[in-house]
Amino acid sequence: MSEIAIKHVFEKPKQYKDTDVVLRGWVVSNRGNNKIRFLTISDGSTVENIQATLKGDEFDFKLLDEVRIGAAVQVYGKIVLTPKAKQPLEILASKFVLLKNVDHDFPIQKQEINLETLREIPHLRHRTNLLRCVMLIRSTLALEIHKFFAENGFLNFSAPIITSNDGEGAGEQFYVNDGNKEQPFFGNNNATLGVTGQLHAESYAIGFERVYTFAPTFRAEHSNTKKHAAEFWMIEPEVAFYDLKKIINLANKLLKNVIKNTINKHPREFEYLQNNVDSSLLERLNSFIKKKLMILDYKDALVELEKVKDKFENKDIKFGLDFATEHEKYLAEEIAHGPIAIINFPKSFKAFYMHQNNDNQTVAAFDLLVPGIGELIGGSQREARYGRLLERALEVGISKEELQWYLDLRRFGHSGSAGFGIGFERLVMYVTGVDNIRDVIPYPRTSGNIKM
Amino acid sequence: MSEIAIKHVFEKPKQYKDTDVVLRGWVVSNRGNNKIRFLTISDGSTVENIQATLKGDEFDFKLLDEVRIGAAVQVYGKIVLTPKAKQPLEILASKFVLLKNVDHDFPIQKQEINLETLREIPHLRHRTNLLRCVMLIRSTLALEIHKFFAENGFLNFSAPIITSNDGEGAGEQFYVNDGNKEQPFFGNNNATLGVTGQLHAESYAIGFERVYTFAPTFRAEHSNTKKHAAEFWMIEPEVAFYDLKKIINLANKLLKNVIKNTINKHPREFEYLQNNVDSSLLERLNSFIKKKLMILDYKDALVELEKVKDKFENKDIKFGLDFATEHEKYLAEEIAHGPIAIINFPKSFKAFYMHQNNDNQTVAAFDLLVPGIGELIGGSQREARYGRLLERALEVGISKEELQWYLDLRRFGHSGSAGFGIGFERLVMYVTGVDNIRDVIPYPRTSGNIKM
Repeated sequence: MSEIAIKHVFEKPKQYKDTDVVLRGWVVSNRGNNKIRFLTISDGSTVENIQATLKGDEFDFKLLDEVRIGAAVQVYGKIVLTPKAKQPLEILASKFVLLKNVDHDFPIQKQEINLETLREIPHLRHRTNLLRCVMLIRSTLALEIHKFFAENGFLNFSAPIITSNDGEGAGEQFYVNDGNKEQPFFGNNNATLGVTGQLHAESYAIGFERVYTFAPTFRAEHSNTKKHAAEFWMIEPEVAFYDLKKIINLANKLLKNVIKNTINKHPREFEYLQNNVDSSLLERLNSFIKKKLMILDYKDALVELEKVKDKFENKDIKFGLDFATEHEKYLAEEIAHGPIAIINFPKSFKAFYMHQNNDNQTVAAFDLLVPGIGELIGGSQREARYGRLLERALEVGISKEELQWYLDLRRFGHSGSAGFGIGFERLVMYVTGVDNIRDVIPYPRTSGNIKM
Repeated sequence: MSEIAIKHVFEKPKQYKDTDVVLRGWVVSNRGNNKIRFLTISDGSTVENIQATLKGDEFDFKLLDEVRIGAAVQVYGKIVLTPKAKQPLEILASKFVLLKNVDHDFPIQKQEINLETLREIPHLRHRTNLLRCVMLIRSTLALEIHKFFAENGFLNFSAPIITSNDGEGAGEQFYVNDGNKEQPFFGNNNATLGVTGQLHAESYAIGFERVYTFAPTFRAEHSNTKKHAAEFWMIEPEVAFYDLKKIINLANKLLKNVIKNTINKHPREFEYLQNNVDSSLLERLNSFIKKKLMILDYKDALVELEKVKDKFENKDIKFGLDFATEHEKYLAEEIAHGPIAIINFPKSFKAFYMHQNNDNQTVAAFDLLVPGIGELIGGSQREARYGRLLERALEVGISKEELQWYLDLRRFGHSGSAGFGIGFERLVMYVTGVDNIRDVIPYPRTSGNIKM
């Protein structure tokens, strides 16, 4: 009598054929009469449910009639292949245990609930098929990212979350205190939640060469869009000795590798998403995997945008424009017909730590844009010259004192490095086709919203 | 001409014999004269350094003389096996590039610096051998933990970091705000940094069965000990349908698996730690891996402690005692001679969510203790009964309103679950033999300390 995960049974039905198994999970549907019952059960290992058929005198049909959707149950029985039925296999039950029924007001029922309503119940909504798919894929993406970095010699590095540095110099930080006004926990230091792990990652790239972080980051940004959250996970690799070209190659290789492996591991979940979210999802992802990444200079991108500027809400297409999502999507969808890296942005709206190009106008930065989302990755070669870095930091209002340790890296063997950040939730959105960040992270945090 | 990582060359010297390679890294030592130079170089892939020998007219010996410890360099040359020398191989250089020298005040030099002083320079201290070992092992432990959970069907789950729940009910929380007093970012909600992901993980265990978090957690605790930090990473698995016995088995299996795999991947780093930190390190770890986990009831542990109570600072050995590290170490070192799980603690000092045993005095909790550290893991079976859970929550001062969503899980298919938390830094301490938590996390945060 082996304990099974539903996923494994569907992967290798012949291996399980006619074997005695025991299954625990939650009821998805319950139909039949007082002679035969069909319970569909999910155990969360896959979006697929298994059907258990219960018939015979050993079952308490009065009890079975009361088993509601969401109830925790345990079923003993035999796996039977059913090639003629809708589902390829089922459990012919020999014993049934109702572990725990649910109350009448359990909100997840057969009829679909819209995503907005589900956001009100983040502790329950993963028990719908869509959220189940998203979270399974999210989990696999995370694992594949860790594996990719390990296979490529990267050190898993933990940047501090509470920090006295504003890593982006953008001032959108949360502050941290322990409620003690007389003797604050961190003294008179500015204690904030990290907006990036990059500055600290650079220190470790000097010495370890290849490092990455995978951690929550925070922005006290009020923008109430589908793409922004106050708390989100970021993946930030940093590689010593890399320049802009090499780091773009790494981003491209990473994305293709993890997306490909994730697709291979989730045939059922992608089938569900194709049928219920976006019928062109797999086509788009597969074309991404196969397609060469297009690289376009910011100035050349401006030329392309200028040609069709009437399409856009913001028609002021000129040097200095910080692309909005509409511009990004156009470049990816209509110019590249796939992923595109825009490089060499004006320094005016990019972070202070980026390598300043010889034109004195632009920095060696890149944004990787994808159809449907816009920016998925932002990165750059870092400014390794002490003087240039300090100059730019002062220009944007960061004090030398705060930044001294970071500047000092340039005196202590920092001969250049490059890195990028992937918003993990944006990646999950891209890979699942789900278009709101609130639906790809278990407990989303946005302005005013801190449920549970 | 292939780019190499030093680690790979030492792993497979024969494969690299007489091949032309290029290496980038940082200088660890520079000796010789104006005819021949020996540079030892680290690239951070291993604690092992490689020696590059530079001789011949093509080299600028005046420049070479100026290359300081910490400088970033690039060396082209041929791998030569040197069975008669101290080191098994070297690079016979054909070309040398000084990528970036360091200033004279680079603090990492040949002579050893004590760990306390190194804590003042968290951005540089990883360029010493000890910190390099610790961080390499930390990285591998993280990867092995993710792999273990993936192989065992666990969902990687992201609990929220900013939360309105005090998960332990202990009140040692940090508060979060965006500096806006008129219109706070999260409204009038209590926004705090999570002390645990467990409550939220339970919601996902109902539906996914097996989930785990691996994320930073926070405690505004002023205790200035070697074991406590304000910010630390935790691994928290949660499994539906598991009881106390099953979850202890999982903890035991997880630890043995990841420690074993980590040892296998780091022969050089463990050799270094054996020679420089603790000569019995590997013996202790290997005995842990081989030894059966001892399980002892709290009451029986009291009997053992009572026998030798004069040993302890706290001699008040009676029911209700929350073990101090001295007691924990004694139980692991002298009773179990290895890891030991103490079970069924008094409910008085354990968290409100633990399953209440029938004796009305104790809860189905466990602490896993190891020699040298004391508590490495704490966990429990959860209280699945709505009434008992609510009663206990109210007793410890948690409002029903705040906890309603968590209580509701018990109405919606929560038939029991169990889980535990591993303090990741404590695990790194245990595996490396390093005895201060400040030395196993890159940028430690403790009371008053928020460098960088």
